[in-house]
Amino acid sequence: MIKIENMETFIVEKDNPELKDSILIEGLPGVGLVGKIAVDYMISELKAKKFADLYSPYMPHQALIKGKSELELIKNEFYYYKGKKDMIFLAGEAQAVDIFGHYEIASKVLDYVEKYDVKSIFTLGGFATKEAGDRVFGAVTDPEMVKEYDNLGITFMKDGSIVGAAGLLLGIGKLRGIKGTCLLGECPGYLVSPKAAKAVLKVVTEIFGIRISFKKLDERVKKTEEFLKNIKMLEGTEEEKIKEDYIG
Amino acid sequence: MIKIENMETFIVEKDNPELKDSILIEGLPGVGLVGKIAVDYMISELKAKKFADLYSPYMPHQALIKGKSELELIKNEFYYYKGKKDMIFLAGEAQAVDIFGHYEIASKVLDYVEKYDVKSIFTLGGFATKEAGDRVFGAVTDPEMVKEYDNLGITFMKDGSIVGAAGLLLGIGKLRGIKGTCLLGECPGYLVSPKAAKAVLKVVTEIFGIRISFKKLDERVKKTEEFLKNIKMLEGTEEEKIKEDYIG
Amino acid sequence: MIKIENMETFIVEKDNPELKDSILIEGLPGVGLVGKIAVDYMISELKAKKFADLYSPYMPHQALIKGKSELELIKNEFYYYKGKKDMIFLAGEAQAVDIFGHYEIASKVLDYVEKYDVKSIFTLGGFATKEAGDRVFGAVTDPEMVKEYDNLGITFMKDGSIVGAAGLLLGIGKLRGIKGTCLLGECPGYLVSPKAAKAVLKVVTEIFGIRISFKKLDERVKKTEEFLKNIKMLEGTEEEKIKEDYIG
Amino acid sequence: MIKIENMETFIVEKDNPELKDSILIEGLPGVGLVGKIAVDYMISELKAKKFADLYSPYMPHQALIKGKSELELIKNEFYYYKGKKDMIFLAGEAQAVDIFGHYEIASKVLDYVEKYDVKSIFTLGGFATKEAGDRVFGAVTDPEMVKEYDNLGITFMKDGSIVGAAGLLLGIGKLRGIKGTCLLGECPGYLVSPKAAKAVLKVVTEIFGIRISFKKLDERVKKTEEFLKNIKMLEGTEEEKIKEDYIG
Repeated sequence: MIKIENMETFIVEKDNPELKDSILIEGLPGVGLVGKIAVDYMISELKAKKFADLYSPYMPHQALIKGKSELELIKNEFYYYKGKKDMIFLAGEAQAVDIFGHYEIASKVLDYVEKYDVKSIFTLGGFATKEAGDRVFGAVTDPEMVKEYDNLGITFMKDGSIVGAAGLLLGIGKLRGIKGTCLLGECPGYLVSPKAAKAVLKVVTEIFGIRISFKKLDERVKKTEEFLKNIKMLEGTEEEKIKEDYIG
Repeated sequence: MIKIENMETFIVEKDNPELKDSILIEGLPGVGLVGKIAVDYMISELKAKKFADLYSPYMPHQALIKGKSELELIKNEFYYYKGKKDMIFLAGEAQAVDIFGHYEIASKVLDYVEKYDVKSIFTLGGFATKEAGDRVFGAVTDPEMVKEYDNLGITFMKDGSIVGAAGLLLGIGKLRGIKGTCLLGECPGYLVSPKAAKAVLKVVTEIFGIRISFKKLDERVKKTEEFLKNIKMLEGTEEEKIKEDYIG
Repeated sequence: MIKIENMETFIVEKDNPELKDSILIEGLPGVGLVGKIAVDYMISELKAKKFADLYSPYMPHQALIKGKSELELIKNEFYYYKGKKDMIFLAGEAQAVDIFGHYEIASKVLDYVEKYDVKSIFTLGGFATKEAGDRVFGAVTDPEMVKEYDNLGITFMKDGSIVGAAGLLLGIGKLRGIKGTCLLGECPGYLVSPKAAKAVLKVVTEIFGIRISFKKLDERVKKTEEFLKNIKMLEGTEEEKIKEDYIG
Repeated sequence: MIKIENMETFIVEKDNPELKDSILIEGLPGVGLVGKIAVDYMISELKAKKFADLYSPYMPHQALIKGKSELELIKNEFYYYKGKKDMIFLAGEAQAVDIFGHYEIASKVLDYVEKYDVKSIFTLGGFATKEAGDRVFGAVTDPEMVKEYDNLGITFMKDGSIVGAAGLLLGIGKLRGIKGTCLLGECPGYLVSPKAAKAVLKVVTEIFGIRISFKKLDERVKKTEEFLKNIKMLEGTEEEKIKEDYIG
């Protein structure tokens, strides 16, 4: 039982894994659900283990219903995977609802993962462009890192800004001496984009020398593409309606 | 006299009843005023006794005028009833005005009622559907409970979310080891729905083996139905106007 | 010099008057500027003395320019007057900008004035009606007080709510054992209403047996009425423009 | 490494200069970017040295990308210059995102610079007028200062208000016994205005007897004017589009 006298962001720990020199990989809901799809997929394929939940009064004021009608407070989740590199995944159903909350949660996440010797942070997401091609855009907290990633086909951004958890974890992390990389898959923005998630995952798995099967993700990409083809045969209002149903 | 140096959510206790193994039943203003009507009706029929008031800077910044011109700060109220089961009712005139406030008040409510040995929480409300039939939708914090409620005709929800006090009391309560049930009466949403409140009350009273008269509530249901019939004979803007006046 | 390590609502005291059994009369900006005009006028006619300023991060983020180009942080002000009854006037340029701030400032005001033995609070304001006649509406924290005010021609309200400082000072004050009265002058709402302020002042001065000259206020009422007569001779957009310029 | 247990406004100090009797000059983003252009230009021309960064959960929740793809948390910056007068410049990429944050950051800035013996504050900005001429508007915290600035051609304001950092630094500074001056360059408001920045800088450099070259700023003024001339030859939507691209 957890007693919360004054409501604030808090973490409920379920396990206490031994991690060294670890990497934090964030994939929370955002543009095209790219980051969320990518991280949820890695968790599933790598059979990463849940070890903690984060709750916050700066998240939506909702309990979600799952499975056979099971209510649970909306939350973020920490998973770990011990491979060539120890990894922590930050997944979940929502980001903060306001600006102060974004800073608050990003700080609390960093406070927590520092305990697990995090040395580098990757934040994954989508980047909406008109072309909606298959590029992966990147930005780093230390310009030296651009060279390290030389042969990965990343399009490094020279200006602009990264908003939300993906930006703050890296920005605050940098102040604490943690290296950071942001990887954003190109997508149209208004549709869930498993294709962009795959592009991002290709880069991430190459960086860490991880092998995962992309079979299930490819199926999802195919289904989305068929769906889009069908949409193009429909018209105006009808199309709009279907798009709405499909947006994550 | 209560001195409040720094304004925060606080509770003014008027009585200190002895309650064991008790149930918290919440019915604050929400969709169709279903929860509020249901809980206010139980308080009145069971002659439940007021024992505490809750005030908060996260409620509307208003004093309400009642009776012979009596001003009072807007608030939530705690009532108790000692029957087969000890019960606490959470009633009131408003929910929190922002998301942080929703978490803050739900936490403070739970801090307070734990003192009275609350083991189970019921949150009541309305669920707007296009059919607006007479179903009662349910969700529970432990899937085992679905079986317990087997013969009550509840439609258990498999996804979606419960927003506001009804969701947070259950979600935070679950983290503290308290069982939770949400019961939502089907209604059109834009009108006050005593009919949905009655449907919810039927289920609640059956669960606890309580007998109350539904006479006064039936009268209110009838009045609403007559009102709706008259509306259908009117048109356009006029109808809109009347609807507005009738929404709680 | 005042050092403010963490910005919060604070009061700068300039004098420390001896007051007994005192009355707090609030008149901050609101509907028709009625409360503000009434209290500012009493301060001026009674030559009440300033003894404290209140600043708050929940007020507009502005410095105001006055006199020969003198910048000052926006604030609320406390004045006192020692007559048959000791009186404290709460005047100023703004109310809180959000709901939490309203509770915060009202609480801090009460914390402060309790030091000066406040036993009763009057909050003054405007009440917008379609008739815009010359009634004074009232509400009290104790229904017994309705009798006390029997021959003053006050229209006591039986429902509704008082929003903002006028409501919270009375609502929170009541919880601290302080009696409270709200007096609202009838007005059209969208125009500054010295006439409504005069109606409210008539009642207040009668309650306390105070004599003040209404000459300057009558002049202002007359000017407003002439202005309104002229407006009626103008049309559409032009009228709108002038109204805008005239709203406080 | 900086550990931030509870996220709040904080300052990372990189140098600890010895400053006496110093002047704070603020130029953060605002109307026409006038203040920002003016202060950034002085920092560049005087080769002022960076000595501290300020971060805050009340700034936008973004990391900005610069140079060769380098991510950094959005921030405000302190520079110093030791000349006839010791000077501190407050520059940066953003102001607070809400009202409470404006008070919070202004207070923290003052707490910090008081360590460097700040005796006087200048806040620079733009003032949008229909004429958009070349006046410099001024306001001071002490009316005596109007005389001091007698021959500088400043148009002193007699009413109105100064919103945001420019107003609060002066208003809160005054409460702490620090003199304050606001200087606003006249501009159309919806366009970046280097011309207004130059007008303000002319006054500031004259007050402090500083000589700087205006060459680069003149070039920027010229470019803006040519741009505006071209705009006038274009039409409707096209013009709108270009304007949008040019607004800072």
